[in-house]
Amino acid sequence: MDEVLLMIPGPTTVHPRVLNAMSKAVINHRSAKYGELLTETSELMSDLFKTQNQSYLLTGSGTAAMEAAISNVLNPGEKILNVVGGKFGERFMKIAEAHGISCDELAVEWGTAVTPEAIKEALDNDEDIKAISIVHNETSTGVAAPIEKIGKVMKDYDALYIVDTVSSLAGDDVDVDKYGIDVCITGSQKCIAAPPGMSAITLSDDAWKCAENVDSNGFYLDMKAYRKSGDKNPPETPYTPSVSLTYALNEALKMIQEEGVQNRIDRHHKAAKASVEAVKALGLELFADEKVSSTTVTAVKMPEGITDKEFRGTTRDKYGVELAGGQDHLKGNIFRIGHMGNISYKELLQTFGAIGMTLKEFGVIDDAGAGVSSITKSYC
Amino acid sequence: MDEVLLMIPGPTTVHPRVLNAMSKAVINHRSAKYGELLTETSELMSDLFKTQNQSYLLTGSGTAAMEAAISNVLNPGEKILNVVGGKFGERFMKIAEAHGISCDELAVEWGTAVTPEAIKEALDNDEDIKAISIVHNETSTGVAAPIEKIGKVMKDYDALYIVDTVSSLAGDDVDVDKYGIDVCITGSQKCIAAPPGMSAITLSDDAWKCAENVDSNGFYLDMKAYRKSGDKNPPETPYTPSVSLTYALNEALKMIQEEGVQNRIDRHHKAAKASVEAVKALGLELFADEKVSSTTVTAVKMPEGITDKEFRGTTRDKYGVELAGGQDHLKGNIFRIGHMGNISYKELLQTFGAIGMTLKEFGVIDDAGAGVSSITKSYC
Repeated sequence: MDEVLLMIPGPTTVHPRVLNAMSKAVINHRSAKYGELLTETSELMSDLFKTQNQSYLLTGSGTAAMEAAISNVLNPGEKILNVVGGKFGERFMKIAEAHGISCDELAVEWGTAVTPEAIKEALDNDEDIKAISIVHNETSTGVAAPIEKIGKVMKDYDALYIVDTVSSLAGDDVDVDKYGIDVCITGSQKCIAAPPGMSAITLSDDAWKCAENVDSNGFYLDMKAYRKSGDKNPPETPYTPSVSLTYALNEALKMIQEEGVQNRIDRHHKAAKASVEAVKALGLELFADEKVSSTTVTAVKMPEGITDKEFRGTTRDKYGVELAGGQDHLKGNIFRIGHMGNISYKELLQTFGAIGMTLKEFGVIDDAGAGVSSITKSYC
Repeated sequence: MDEVLLMIPGPTTVHPRVLNAMSKAVINHRSAKYGELLTETSELMSDLFKTQNQSYLLTGSGTAAMEAAISNVLNPGEKILNVVGGKFGERFMKIAEAHGISCDELAVEWGTAVTPEAIKEALDNDEDIKAISIVHNETSTGVAAPIEKIGKVMKDYDALYIVDTVSSLAGDDVDVDKYGIDVCITGSQKCIAAPPGMSAITLSDDAWKCAENVDSNGFYLDMKAYRKSGDKNPPETPYTPSVSLTYALNEALKMIQEEGVQNRIDRHHKAAKASVEAVKALGLELFADEKVSSTTVTAVKMPEGITDKEFRGTTRDKYGVELAGGQDHLKGNIFRIGHMGNISYKELLQTFGAIGMTLKEFGVIDDAGAGVSSITKSYC
């Protein structure tokens, strides 16, 4: 069992077609050929974001894109409202703080989602708020925020709407232009199922207007440089991009196009629902409020009678299924099943088979087969 | 002639062994297995830097590492001496400016190298200088700076010694500890001959001491976070690294180990010398002062009677050899031959064959064979 099935919230198991794309020869990144690849890949990314605006590729992980999203549109001292209901909401706030931006925290209990009403109230109470940041899909808790409804609220305010769709784009409903998102970012290694190392960002006209007034606040992630290079003919990136990862991302986006974005999102919804049912069938307890649970990751309370190390060590080493643990104060208290990317009933059968057998072996449950049985019921 | 031979100053043609390494399955970046890969790759990188200090891998291009080198050790308002004799020296200064660092420019005529005496004089004249930045191998001009001799000067001063070896490490002499370099960076896609997208940085104890006093100035490139994650067991990166590029970099570093670092550097020296001789044999003029010309890129004045577009378009489209043009004010005035990575007499024969035939066809020279003839003489 050399190949471990990655059921973590990214990176996800990468299809051989995408891996093979990286075996192509590295080409000059300042050539017409790379320009074509960059243009096509950026356009496929804008299609996925559902935006008429240009998308830009960054060689860097999702965190690089998070930083670009914040640091390009706010000056030090300007105020941002950070919605914090998990580790990545927290990260947005830490990034803003690192740039000297004034942070208002809208704290949300981990495992629950922020409400549009809470956003409205915060904006009404402080007209200095220049932007809000929100993580669409909080992988640390398995919660999806209602970004469409929040978008409707945001239309009444001038504040920029910054949304992290790193772990939701291509796996849950995201419509940048319809929701009025001003800055949207994503990563390559989640629902898109390419290898990690690239991320993408798109900015609205309003966001670019803010960017014009922001003094260069860092260098590598200065989006004005990306725009300038992207406007060249052939288009370029300002600094050497990862050519190989661009091949991979391009191939993964083409696979999404072939599947159909909506089909892919529906498939993720189905996998999430099936996972939730299987968790219940095993007698386990969901960590996240089921009404707002994520379509790409299911967080489960660790049952009594088994440690995190025993549980995840066994599913991985004995059954070849890699699950994620809890982060920060949730460490040891929950485990997380990522069901992103190329996930069908068969990966879920392996996953819930591994979970059921492990828990049975440790005497936590009696029926090792309840989870897999539930999966078959969800899929037929 | 689908595969173009990359004779540009990075990226370089990547060996199939390295490309194939990327076809391995993407694994969890927070697993013992990735920890082993990260540890081994970082150690191979420290061996290459010739330092006892830890090296850290960044998912990002060389420019990301340049930014990390500057922004982690200097606070806004502190003074840096930037040696600027080309585009990358300039970039170090722009990065420092973007972080509010006070910049003193030590301007060096493009095509010549800074002298240790000039550094000494600048440091003697201003005791507020907290660090100097220098690009070892300035690919924009084809000049190598005397970093060993400058290192001897630096030992008499407290200022940090920051050196960019992006396009020299594994292709020219670099000995971080012996030269007393405090912050050294490199990129994956130059002499190391891995695909672009990863870079590396190493910091001395003195540099870390400065870093302790620098307020978080940015997020993605905050090296204190890399150190904290690197100290974990198993070691990690703070943000999702490019697993596939780590495989590639690891394989490329192993190939360097197999070849022997000194053998590889000698091979680069030989290729540079042969290139210089072949340029002269063709009756062309070197751009850089030959006494300080680079071991990894040769810059040549564009001869009369042919445009940059005609010249490089023909070598690429007709003969499959991609050369680099000049940058900024040198655009159209010079061309550059990168001879980095896996370069032997045969790539140089193809390159100088293409150059000779192109120039002959445009009536610039009479003897298309003088360059290749010279290459054979250099190699036997």
